[in-house]
Amino acid sequence: MSSPRWPALEGIAYGGDYTPEQWPREVWHEDVALMREAGVNLVSIGIFAWGLLETREGEFDFGWLDEVIALLHENGIKVDLGTPTASPPAWFFANHPDARVITRDGVVMGFGARGMASHSAPAYRDAAVRIATQLAKRYGEHPAVVLWHVHNEYGVPVGEDYSPHAVREWRLWLQERYGSLDALNAAWGTAFWGQHYGDWEHVGAPAAAPSVVNPAQRLDFARFTDHQLRECFIAERDAIRAHSDRPITTNFMANQHGGCDLWAWAREVDVVSDDHYLWAADDEGEIGLAIAADLTRSVGGGNPWILMEHSTSAVNWQPRNVAKRPGEMARNSLSHLGRGADGILFFQWRAGRSGAEKFHSAMIPHAGTESRVFREVVDLGAKLSRLGEVRGSRVDADVAILWDFESFWAQDLEWRPSEDVGHAERIRAYYERLWRDGITVDFALPGHDLSGYKLVIAPAQYLLRSADADNLNRYVEAGGTLVVSFFSAVVDENDAVHAGGFAAPLTPALGIHVEEHLPLREGDTCAVAFDGQSLAADIWQEDLVLGDAEVRGRYLDGPAAGAAAITRNAYGAGHGWYVSTRPDAAGLAAIMTEVYADAGLRPADLPAGVEAVRRRGADADYLVAINHGTETVSLSVSGEDLLTQTSADGMLELAGGDVAVIRSPHTAGEGGPH
Amino acid sequence: MSSPRWPALEGIAYGGDYTPEQWPREVWHEDVALMREAGVNLVSIGIFAWGLLETREGEFDFGWLDEVIALLHENGIKVDLGTPTASPPAWFFANHPDARVITRDGVVMGFGARGMASHSAPAYRDAAVRIATQLAKRYGEHPAVVLWHVHNEYGVPVGEDYSPHAVREWRLWLQERYGSLDALNAAWGTAFWGQHYGDWEHVGAPAAAPSVVNPAQRLDFARFTDHQLRECFIAERDAIRAHSDRPITTNFMANQHGGCDLWAWAREVDVVSDDHYLWAADDEGEIGLAIAADLTRSVGGGNPWILMEHSTSAVNWQPRNVAKRPGEMARNSLSHLGRGADGILFFQWRAGRSGAEKFHSAMIPHAGTESRVFREVVDLGAKLSRLGEVRGSRVDADVAILWDFESFWAQDLEWRPSEDVGHAERIRAYYERLWRDGITVDFALPGHDLSGYKLVIAPAQYLLRSADADNLNRYVEAGGTLVVSFFSAVVDENDAVHAGGFAAPLTPALGIHVEEHLPLREGDTCAVAFDGQSLAADIWQEDLVLGDAEVRGRYLDGPAAGAAAITRNAYGAGHGWYVSTRPDAAGLAAIMTEVYADAGLRPADLPAGVEAVRRRGADADYLVAINHGTETVSLSVSGEDLLTQTSADGMLELAGGDVAVIRSPHTAGEGGPH
Amino acid sequence: MSSPRWPALEGIAYGGDYTPEQWPREVWHEDVALMREAGVNLVSIGIFAWGLLETREGEFDFGWLDEVIALLHENGIKVDLGTPTASPPAWFFANHPDARVITRDGVVMGFGARGMASHSAPAYRDAAVRIATQLAKRYGEHPAVVLWHVHNEYGVPVGEDYSPHAVREWRLWLQERYGSLDALNAAWGTAFWGQHYGDWEHVGAPAAAPSVVNPAQRLDFARFTDHQLRECFIAERDAIRAHSDRPITTNFMANQHGGCDLWAWAREVDVVSDDHYLWAADDEGEIGLAIAADLTRSVGGGNPWILMEHSTSAVNWQPRNVAKRPGEMARNSLSHLGRGADGILFFQWRAGRSGAEKFHSAMIPHAGTESRVFREVVDLGAKLSRLGEVRGSRVDADVAILWDFESFWAQDLEWRPSEDVGHAERIRAYYERLWRDGITVDFALPGHDLSGYKLVIAPAQYLLRSADADNLNRYVEAGGTLVVSFFSAVVDENDAVHAGGFAAPLTPALGIHVEEHLPLREGDTCAVAFDGQSLAADIWQEDLVLGDAEVRGRYLDGPAAGAAAITRNAYGAGHGWYVSTRPDAAGLAAIMTEVYADAGLRPADLPAGVEAVRRRGADADYLVAINHGTETVSLSVSGEDLLTQTSADGMLELAGGDVAVIRSPHTAGEGGPH
Repeated sequence: MSSPRWPALEGIAYGGDYTPEQWPREVWHEDVALMREAGVNLVSIGIFAWGLLETREGEFDFGWLDEVIALLHENGIKVDLGTPTASPPAWFFANHPDARVITRDGVVMGFGARGMASHSAPAYRDAAVRIATQLAKRYGEHPAVVLWHVHNEYGVPVGEDYSPHAVREWRLWLQERYGSLDALNAAWGTAFWGQHYGDWEHVGAPAAAPSVVNPAQRLDFARFTDHQLRECFIAERDAIRAHSDRPITTNFMANQHGGCDLWAWAREVDVVSDDHYLWAADDEGEIGLAIAADLTRSVGGGNPWILMEHSTSAVNWQPRNVAKRPGEMARNSLSHLGRGADGILFFQWRAGRSGAEKFHSAMIPHAGTESRVFREVVDLGAKLSRLGEVRGSRVDADVAILWDFESFWAQDLEWRPSEDVGHAERIRAYYERLWRDGITVDFALPGHDLSGYKLVIAPAQYLLRSADADNLNRYVEAGGTLVVSFFSAVVDENDAVHAGGFAAPLTPALGIHVEEHLPLREGDTCAVAFDGQSLAADIWQEDLVLGDAEVRGRYLDGPAAGAAAITRNAYGAGHGWYVSTRPDAAGLAAIMTEVYADAGLRPADLPAGVEAVRRRGADADYLVAINHGTETVSLSVSGEDLLTQTSADGMLELAGGDVAVIRSPHTAGEGGPH
Repeated sequence: MSSPRWPALEGIAYGGDYTPEQWPREVWHEDVALMREAGVNLVSIGIFAWGLLETREGEFDFGWLDEVIALLHENGIKVDLGTPTASPPAWFFANHPDARVITRDGVVMGFGARGMASHSAPAYRDAAVRIATQLAKRYGEHPAVVLWHVHNEYGVPVGEDYSPHAVREWRLWLQERYGSLDALNAAWGTAFWGQHYGDWEHVGAPAAAPSVVNPAQRLDFARFTDHQLRECFIAERDAIRAHSDRPITTNFMANQHGGCDLWAWAREVDVVSDDHYLWAADDEGEIGLAIAADLTRSVGGGNPWILMEHSTSAVNWQPRNVAKRPGEMARNSLSHLGRGADGILFFQWRAGRSGAEKFHSAMIPHAGTESRVFREVVDLGAKLSRLGEVRGSRVDADVAILWDFESFWAQDLEWRPSEDVGHAERIRAYYERLWRDGITVDFALPGHDLSGYKLVIAPAQYLLRSADADNLNRYVEAGGTLVVSFFSAVVDENDAVHAGGFAAPLTPALGIHVEEHLPLREGDTCAVAFDGQSLAADIWQEDLVLGDAEVRGRYLDGPAAGAAAITRNAYGAGHGWYVSTRPDAAGLAAIMTEVYADAGLRPADLPAGVEAVRRRGADADYLVAINHGTETVSLSVSGEDLLTQTSADGMLELAGGDVAVIRSPHTAGEGGPH
Repeated sequence: MSSPRWPALEGIAYGGDYTPEQWPREVWHEDVALMREAGVNLVSIGIFAWGLLETREGEFDFGWLDEVIALLHENGIKVDLGTPTASPPAWFFANHPDARVITRDGVVMGFGARGMASHSAPAYRDAAVRIATQLAKRYGEHPAVVLWHVHNEYGVPVGEDYSPHAVREWRLWLQERYGSLDALNAAWGTAFWGQHYGDWEHVGAPAAAPSVVNPAQRLDFARFTDHQLRECFIAERDAIRAHSDRPITTNFMANQHGGCDLWAWAREVDVVSDDHYLWAADDEGEIGLAIAADLTRSVGGGNPWILMEHSTSAVNWQPRNVAKRPGEMARNSLSHLGRGADGILFFQWRAGRSGAEKFHSAMIPHAGTESRVFREVVDLGAKLSRLGEVRGSRVDADVAILWDFESFWAQDLEWRPSEDVGHAERIRAYYERLWRDGITVDFALPGHDLSGYKLVIAPAQYLLRSADADNLNRYVEAGGTLVVSFFSAVVDENDAVHAGGFAAPLTPALGIHVEEHLPLREGDTCAVAFDGQSLAADIWQEDLVLGDAEVRGRYLDGPAAGAAAITRNAYGAGHGWYVSTRPDAAGLAAIMTEVYADAGLRPADLPAGVEAVRRRGADADYLVAINHGTETVSLSVSGEDLLTQTSADGMLELAGGDVAVIRSPHTAGEGGPH
């Protein structure tokens, strides 16, 4: 059976996770009435209902679910039907104690929270396929069901498993990957610290050991874990597909859980969906949100995607769960939409009174419908109902930032040169500069076809395969502009330092290599002379060996005082920049101004705090403009604001906190936000 | 057999834990001579002597204990005889490995420190009853033995147990509590995260799991743990009672260990006793001490109680164990006495040379009797000997602060809105204001008869049963003044959010409910306009929905800028105040000034740093006055200072660091300290 | 068989750990050529090669090692042959799962990092002796092999073991130590907390327990662990000795791993060797290095020793791995040499591309031979080649600092009076003062013959046996000067407080004892009046009881305000100083100025940042001078600089960062650095 790539519903999808099983039937009827009031057209159900659907192993009770789906269907609300396999029932763990996850330290994970069983336990795989099959058989052709929501956030809150089942599968996976123990020994460098293997049965999971475990082994274990989780998804997906032609998704966590290689996962789903929650401690959480949205779109190949979960206000699992302020929910939603989301859903429809997430906000909060949140939910539903024509339009970007889960897995292992170096921090810093400049970004792998981008940035490409380095070199040679941040191109796919030294694989493009890393002491800062200015930087310097590159910035102090800090290399028709330290935001701005010039990019002339992204439709462009500030600003745009149905003729006044979606004829992509 | 409620001894009890088993016999004779010198009339013995009394399972050696008790008896020193069940012997754990406690993470607790076995292990219960019975049979009628000291600090250092024995008992306890799995599923909200139970055998202890375990389950496990510990106490108590009519106690830890619901425990003992240790990092540790003393008195229904342990100087288990300064031990002792203690005992008589607590101070320190500490011990004994007539007098209070162990258990679970919110901190803040104002406080449960109090404060009543909320509403209606701090009345007894939203059960009394919690970011502060002043506050705001309440304070900034911060509601004949943020000390003082006016309370006009509490005897009042400052102060009191046997005629000069106990005729409770 | 005390090679040993097993054969040939270029004459091999030498249990493959040794031999490079027992192969742990180490918390240590098996597992002991025997039989008389390198860093990364094997051996060790349970019960003070033992089989390892485990038990367990590790060494050593007369060493970690009592270990080796790594966060890491070197020399009885490992630049296992700056490697190397090292080796010859330590620097870094590091390696080789005549000369010191591993084990247990007190910190502070004053230091045990020293300092002698206290008293009586810092002489060998109170055993020498410890609150400071100055101090005061001592410093504030802080006691022909607080560096300098006067010591008149140590040869003195600063300094010395082969005639100009080794006739030890 084949399936469409988008659920069959009208306009922008709007709704949230719905858990009628937590409420008496009289509330169900109130719920659907309120959903209609709010313009909800899609709800996700059944995600944590395994124990209520399969009440004992092999005994099913679908009556209540039949009723819920029928009620929704009667009210014109479509269903995103979950498989409940992220949280097996109490009977499952009681019947199959061997299927419990075991941590690195040997702790056997208990029941009572949420979390799947061992990804490698046959009993779990069987049970997951069984319940998915039952659901697909019963509801696979139901007219209300337009989408399948397999599992929930694979890898969260538990993915890695060190149980005997996992170890057995791990050895098979390694045999498949390496073919021979000789190859494994070579790839893992087991000659170091006397780790040579002479028998496959001697290879264990990288559990707690007296010292740091072989990083290549741990990197492979991360790959294995990702693979096993994906196998679990595929098994469920295929079980559903046998009985249903509806599109199938599973909700990712983009930049908020790094355990799944979403480039690979996105190939397995019909439609990409993502969960995103603001990080409350960040008072510019909208930038992290934009990263999530751009990454979600990018892994999905630029196709429209669904924001499967976000929050109407506060979450409950952060140290301080800051509530959203008036208008913030709409700004967040429109930012996702501007970056390619054609569905805006929440966790959750109605705040649950019990359990670990009772303080998580919802479309109907504990305070009920007479509340700011519910009023904004209704208002957002009305706004989205006016944006149906935006659906299916796409986002173009001139810049790609490299985002490589494998590289992050490797970089985040122990015993790197400085604990101050973090991959996410550097990506955020470069992304943030582009966000403030109104320049839209895709994310990409280093092995992707990058020829369409004017600028490619590698803020944290610690692991870089030689073939991928060649791809980057060719990109520059062909005229591209490449910016590489420090501690990149250090190791190959086995976490082995590249022959020739750090960054050597990028020497063609960059015209340098790195003789030595020079981490700074805690709290130390340094200065870089650049274009007549003194840029502030910290945590890191490097001792660069210059090839053909020109020195654009020089260290004024620190261990590399007097030596090259920032270089620019002309290679073929393009340019390769290398930034060997961590400049502060102002310093990075100065550098990127020069980089833009090489790349032929111009920052959009946006007021501070204004976000603007363009979606390109078949017949028109849609500029989504969001004012995160408190003051009214003027934007030079023309077209019709779909939200207010008024026209902007060259100038749009956007009040503090407000949003607009301006339809205009296709632009050339020059000037203004793009 | 019934028993008196107070040990048969003269005057105020004075002494400490005595461990002759750590010393050769020649030291015993020196000890009793020194005890007589110091005025000691009661010592606690045998508390850690199990292995020396029952040398192998079922084989007893009481010879040395006979000798010790006889020696004490000859010297007129009474005995508080311990059962040694807080620390089973090595043979017990060797013979009964299944009785070892298992932690949440699955670690089996070893021998070598101290700590009881599993509260649910039959072998432990049997052994505890056996040794208690043996002791009661042998010494139950001994003339020296005037009190039984069962166990030691139940729940410390280990209470919770996740062993198979505990899990078995837990299921039985749940069956007793809920009757049916349906009731359990409903109470725990197991529909959330798919935790439905279909079989009692599937219900486990809330051990380590991939994410946060069901909070209602954890709350019940806290109740279960408390219940099991109390069952252990009751089993020993009843075994003793079969052979002895002496009063029975077990030493609580009031505000220093939250695992036991002391309101329930106090009903099971004949006389309440408490251990209290200053928190050295707090340079006003006397306020925490006063909380402990008032709480101990309150759980005991206002009856006199025994300070079973405190320290002559430093303890040994804190990060920095600050020694007491000259006079501080006497001030501490008199503060306990002023707040209802009729016995002042120490851990410990003589500093032990070995073991984990060798750096804990004692009545005889390592430096011996030629020491500041021993001189002060002798002096304190002399002081107490002059206070015999105070014994049995009581303390009256016009103010009650709610103190509900169940609520603390619930509030302290994971995933609350902000980790900056702590129950103990708010109680201290409100208590501290009253302490500085010289207003004596009782603690109470929200379901208690509160009609005798002019003011009731709920600084941290996160969990509030609906029936208890009704009780508070009725209290206000009948003319009481109620102050409720933020994050109160949030959940019911199952940690489920109240229908109607946060604080809804108190809407009658308060005239508001809470639409949304607004935790602040780390380090953020805010201001509240109140009575023409700007009060400083932090960590929290709320979005209040006003009912009938008047707005008394408004947020000047922060997420709720412009909205109500502090409200006052006239309800029936009383008033309900709500404080939706955390004001600093000055801010709270301003608020409380207004609250006092509603409640008809007047602060005592005491110099800074002076503590004064009144005990009301049958024939006279006794004002205990303590000068925690370094300067001499004047207090307007009349009567005779029992310590100096001089009379104060309207004015008492109290030197820096000094104490006085003034006997005077009964006062009306108006003016001055009360 | 007996053996020489030094490996048979010419001049100063120079080289590093060499791991040809990580590289293809063509690299081996490049390696030996480069070794010759660099002047390398000794390499350590085979240390992590067990799995490649014994490929299955009992099956050996020495072919590749034959080849490596032959190649080295052909090129005149001597071999320090390792036994690979620090990292048993995968097959070992698979075949002997019972030999895995178990942690205090019960976690079974896995394979995949490095780390030995249980020190008490028979299978491990057998296997270690078997491989050592095989190596000794095969290479014991090989002309290239001049030294045996047993194991690697005993106790790192794992030493303590709580497995059943360890518990069985522990009981035997205790029986041997105590003879009877009565003696054990007395020594451990098991009467405290009811820990009495009635059966040897009930005595367990001090694993995780509900509270703090008996400190005497833990102290003995530290002794036992040290003993078991040493037994493992001895077993291998004796196995080798049966077949080889080459000297045998194992590499210590001096002041960087405290688990081994190096005073005992040094008696078992033929030649002492040490590994030292700068602590990067310390910007005067050269002082910690000097401590390591002086301690290594001292445990070895002043004999020449080998620096078995240090780094050419950064390491990889610290939070921030700061690279060495130009010249720093040579300064470090010469400082070790100046303090007695006759061999300068590195971990490692060539940076490994894979594994947990790939970011550790090497003699050939990842950047290859065209690098600063390799150029400096060649230069250092040349320098050392000119210092052959220094070999065998010795270092004299007038000052001893007490360094007692047992005391550190005891002091570092839980529940001491203040967590701010650390033994290493006080040693560093006193040592640093002497380092800056150019006064060379030995380390010693309190029971050593100290009569040759003018000054003995006890910065952290918490545990002091009575007999050792007597030794110190006699030292003073005979004319010595003793300085004792606070929290010393507190307990005996069983961690039991000395009868008579704290510091009582040193009352003869010091003329005081300590009535009470007075730790300060976090962050509090205090002042001490001393010689008309006000010295700043923090963390600690004490309440001293004065005997015959004179008060030299008095507390100006804090809990002991007005009382004695620093005392000086004339006893016999000498003086005993007591410092009851932690003065800052300036305060300590003021105190030590007075102490020097008593001891007849004079600081060397060295420019700031200049280190100078004298080695005394048979025919000449060798002054090793190191300028850690950046400016050129003048030193008043005469003689020939062996490095530059120029002569200094009364004045040596030493450039910033430079080193010199000046040969001069024997001096009287007066004036200048000594």
